[in-house]
Amino acid sequence: MTTNGIKENGVKKTNNPYMPRYEDLLSRVSNFSIIESTLREGEQFANAFFDTAKKIEIAKALDDFGVEYIELTSPAASDQSRQDCSAICNLGLKAKILTHIRCHMDDARIAVETGVDGVDVVIGTSSYLREFSHGKDMDYITKQATEVINFVKSKGIEVRFSSEDSFRSDLVDLLSIYRTVDKLGVNRVGIADTVGCANPRQVYELVRTLRGVVSCDIECHFHNDTGCAIANAYAALEAGATHIDTSVLGIGERNGITSLGGLCARMYTANKDYIKTKYKLHMLRDLENLVADAVSVQVPFNNYITGYCAFTHKAGIHAKAILNNPSTYEILKPEDFGYVSIGHRLTGWNAVKNRVEQLGLTLTDDQVKKITAKIKELADIRPQSMEDVDNLLRDYHYAVTSGDLSQVESVLSTN
Amino acid sequence: MTTNGIKENGVKKTNNPYMPRYEDLLSRVSNFSIIESTLREGEQFANAFFDTAKKIEIAKALDDFGVEYIELTSPAASDQSRQDCSAICNLGLKAKILTHIRCHMDDARIAVETGVDGVDVVIGTSSYLREFSHGKDMDYITKQATEVINFVKSKGIEVRFSSEDSFRSDLVDLLSIYRTVDKLGVNRVGIADTVGCANPRQVYELVRTLRGVVSCDIECHFHNDTGCAIANAYAALEAGATHIDTSVLGIGERNGITSLGGLCARMYTANKDYIKTKYKLHMLRDLENLVADAVSVQVPFNNYITGYCAFTHKAGIHAKAILNNPSTYEILKPEDFGYVSIGHRLTGWNAVKNRVEQLGLTLTDDQVKKITAKIKELADIRPQSMEDVDNLLRDYHYAVTSGDLSQVESVLSTN
Repeated sequence: MTTNGIKENGVKKTNNPYMPRYEDLLSRVSNFSIIESTLREGEQFANAFFDTAKKIEIAKALDDFGVEYIELTSPAASDQSRQDCSAICNLGLKAKILTHIRCHMDDARIAVETGVDGVDVVIGTSSYLREFSHGKDMDYITKQATEVINFVKSKGIEVRFSSEDSFRSDLVDLLSIYRTVDKLGVNRVGIADTVGCANPRQVYELVRTLRGVVSCDIECHFHNDTGCAIANAYAALEAGATHIDTSVLGIGERNGITSLGGLCARMYTANKDYIKTKYKLHMLRDLENLVADAVSVQVPFNNYITGYCAFTHKAGIHAKAILNNPSTYEILKPEDFGYVSIGHRLTGWNAVKNRVEQLGLTLTDDQVKKITAKIKELADIRPQSMEDVDNLLRDYHYAVTSGDLSQVESVLSTN
Repeated sequence: MTTNGIKENGVKKTNNPYMPRYEDLLSRVSNFSIIESTLREGEQFANAFFDTAKKIEIAKALDDFGVEYIELTSPAASDQSRQDCSAICNLGLKAKILTHIRCHMDDARIAVETGVDGVDVVIGTSSYLREFSHGKDMDYITKQATEVINFVKSKGIEVRFSSEDSFRSDLVDLLSIYRTVDKLGVNRVGIADTVGCANPRQVYELVRTLRGVVSCDIECHFHNDTGCAIANAYAALEAGATHIDTSVLGIGERNGITSLGGLCARMYTANKDYIKTKYKLHMLRDLENLVADAVSVQVPFNNYITGYCAFTHKAGIHAKAILNNPSTYEILKPEDFGYVSIGHRLTGWNAVKNRVEQLGLTLTDDQVKKITAKIKELADIRPQSMEDVDNLLRDYHYAVTSGDLSQVESVLSTN
């Protein structure tokens, strides 16, 4: 891996400015799995109604992309949900298939019959939820969790135990129940910011504490109500979490969770080679379009990587630096996606010069500066399209090479 | 302030689960200012082309919303930019007007003539930018900065000095130049994640270090390429930053910066009373629609607070808890914006019961459970609109109160 190549006094040193200078022993930013929940959390998105064929199409696409796990709506939710769960289990995908159930034996019995590779069990533990949702105390929760976990394990499939609303749960209760289920042999414990209000330093501290209490894997689930879902996932991995829940475009309850594409952008920054090797990043756009169509939303203009402006540069100072060296302003492979627009009043002559060269025209720097001033002047009146700018550049080039001074002046003059 | 009300052993203690248990002395999460840059960073968004009237409309709306600063495109960018800058300075807004210039005397001379309250000076300092953008070394940067700062100060207006791409700049160089300009008497120093790849723990550490080096204010500017712009702003405030740059909907270069609405959502979680007192939060939607129209984009479906699904709940377990106590799953005032949709197969009977009561119908719990099963069954075939569900509830209620058992069975049976 290029980002962790240097050793000094026996300690791995990184030359990536976005990583700690020395390797952090807890960190899993280069060693984690994605639990893709478009077909569970995403089905809770207001617009989502996936029929069986669409679920299968999405599951296959996610599997092809390379996610390690695909999580499905509880088979206890409805008879159709149960049938769809079995159908996806029968596809023979590389990804492991999980389903997400309440911590209840009725649900567990239905789940294990579907053929899933694992069951994600969830129970609310915050004092808010204890009071207003299921009204059960911690002893009862522990007892119920034990029964469900032992039952699922007896069927030889993976089991995860997660609290809900973990960041408003009593810390001692939380650690106590996690230690209990860890000893029962769960594969993972889960932390969930169900209300979307945790912040990265808080996440780092809780995961780091939990890392010292359990020996099993740690899964994290972050809602995005206050804009931290991606950053929280990153902080969790820094603190030793092993699994991150995502959905395509982040769809889910309210404004959703950590988006698959956003997490890829973030982790690409931390360790490009790792992410590129694991996931087919070029599939992201198709995957997002598939899901956006299925739930009748537009991909947001500012979406990570695939948003239409993700790689557009406008300010002259930026465009100049980009053309010299894309890594100056962009980390996310501009050569694969990007372009530099120049038909606006903030353009700089270096960007125009580059376009002149792309068009195969020959102008001196002084000439480029003159025509840049003209572009800026025109753009003050209305934005200039790439075509407008190209035509102007060609006219000017023609005039200059003709040697006809009045023609040059005509191009540069205010019409 | 309700969130910091408790004292214990003379130390302020917070009862907000999303804040440190004891007050953090460095933290400025309850004492910061917004530098709103829709008319500078936002003008660098690919689609942005604001005419004078639109700039004035946006500036007035931002001022009314309550932002402390409005930042404008450099008057050196074009003659129209200069005229617009002067026009906005003449509006007599409560917000201070800033303009953003390169660290160059030519730009500074033009800027101070426009009537701005302050000048934001920026220069690239990372090794990447030193090599590929302006090619100047740190001595030269320091000399040029000194000249510009002294000139702007001599005119009696605010001056900020910012590096660009701060997180890839040499730390010692960076601290050295900040200490120099602090001694020259700048009002603020600025940190900018120009490439959008910094992460919150990195931000916290840099701002905290800087806080120990300079005595002036600290402004932060975060791009969102890898999904951390809001979380980084929060981490910066936790570490003692005083000013955060935003734009409406986050528009800016590439996929933009910290969005005004997203920052409000985040800070509302930290200290609701502080945010509600400073800013007219109810204006957010109009402000975002104004800017979205001006730059021809749709407000993203998953936008913070104003996205159409920001307050929709679907899973039965959530809907039940919400109806009992909105703060269970939502922090962002659901009563002002939210609703609970129930016409889908994941619905729960508690949500249906609530709707029954809203419609003024009378059903026993047992009857509600039966009709919920029917709704789920229908929703397995196709999503049920609110109208569909309401009609079904009314039919069932009519049948039940009629005492005609065959009519009841007819409603509940599969058509």
